[in-house]
Amino acid sequence: MLTLYYATDTCSLATMIALEDAGADYETVKVDFAAAQQRSAEFAKINPKGRVPALATDRGVLTETPAMLAYVAQSFPAAGLAPLDDPFAFAQVQEVNSYICATLHVAHAHRMRGHRWADDPAAIAELTRKAPDAVAGCYEQVERDMLRGPWVMGDAYTLCDGYLFTVSRWMEADSVDPARFPKVTAHRARMAERPEVIAALAKEAV
Amino acid sequence: MLTLYYATDTCSLATMIALEDAGADYETVKVDFAAAQQRSAEFAKINPKGRVPALATDRGVLTETPAMLAYVAQSFPAAGLAPLDDPFAFAQVQEVNSYICATLHVAHAHRMRGHRWADDPAAIAELTRKAPDAVAGCYEQVERDMLRGPWVMGDAYTLCDGYLFTVSRWMEADSVDPARFPKVTAHRARMAERPEVIAALAKEAV
Repeated sequence: MLTLYYATDTCSLATMIALEDAGADYETVKVDFAAAQQRSAEFAKINPKGRVPALATDRGVLTETPAMLAYVAQSFPAAGLAPLDDPFAFAQVQEVNSYICATLHVAHAHRMRGHRWADDPAAIAELTRKAPDAVAGCYEQVERDMLRGPWVMGDAYTLCDGYLFTVSRWMEADSVDPARFPKVTAHRARMAERPEVIAALAKEAV
Repeated sequence: MLTLYYATDTCSLATMIALEDAGADYETVKVDFAAAQQRSAEFAKINPKGRVPALATDRGVLTETPAMLAYVAQSFPAAGLAPLDDPFAFAQVQEVNSYICATLHVAHAHRMRGHRWADDPAAIAELTRKAPDAVAGCYEQVERDMLRGPWVMGDAYTLCDGYLFTVSRWMEADSVDPARFPKVTAHRARMAERPEVIAALAKEAV
């Protein structure tokens, strides 16, 4: 049995969408950020990094979205969520996921999590102020060089789609105008119509 | 033919070590950071993100270290650089690589690349000031929860080892005392004795 530890409106949605796409049998456990549950001693036993998502499996807990996404694709190969038998094409999927994780999500994190990299309140405020520019710069890359359309990898729907959808839902909160990025915005609308995405959003809203 | 675009003392070393470990036939092209070559129009044709590393293959260019590392392991399966037939164990390798990329390397980047997330010089200085603490916090996680020993994944040498070695060489420059992290320091010494690591360091020093 798989158990996904998630929090609403976080990147855990990407893995939840992948699990829905895979038709996986899984349970969910909500981690209450408002109560700082992710930093509790209890949750440290699940993920000592104190973050969501975490995916408990029969063999242990996995963390880090790109790793979890590839795990779902490889564990449910019939779902066709990644080109598993083609190292180059698989690397292209992982390349986008790594960019979303290490550059786009990181740029976003500077809006509300500046304390990770600065103590001075004025510096933290400056990180918040610049976050819209930094995030928009990432979407310029995505729009120009990554999103082929209709899906991220072109005709093939992959792990990248749920991950891009997850972070692109934060655009408005990051003060990034979606109208500047028509391909990303159209992708978001396309994703929002998928039954698996609707199901994942309903589960994470609980 | 594979061509690795690299710069000395950057994370491109991780992929170079993996290529050496794989016994791959590859060429190297140095990108001169002192001349800002990574932001040149010429290099933008290789990697529009303006960063190293980039790995040119017969089918196109790959970027993002975790994606490139998995690509090397999957393209040269005989080298045994990752547990390719075990989705959970492979995810554990990718989990460490994703953490190094998106958390540890990102913490390090705040020392010298604060302009990515702030414009105000005082805020950039604050990011530089806190970087040693942020980086040390990452090594606390690595030392306690990730590095099993003798290699990152235990008895099996994997992609994670070259990547951890690459970033842990930056400890002193990041004002992090290696003596605080005896397992990481011993791993670094163990890695430095490997012929493939010695070969990679010699190539990237050119």
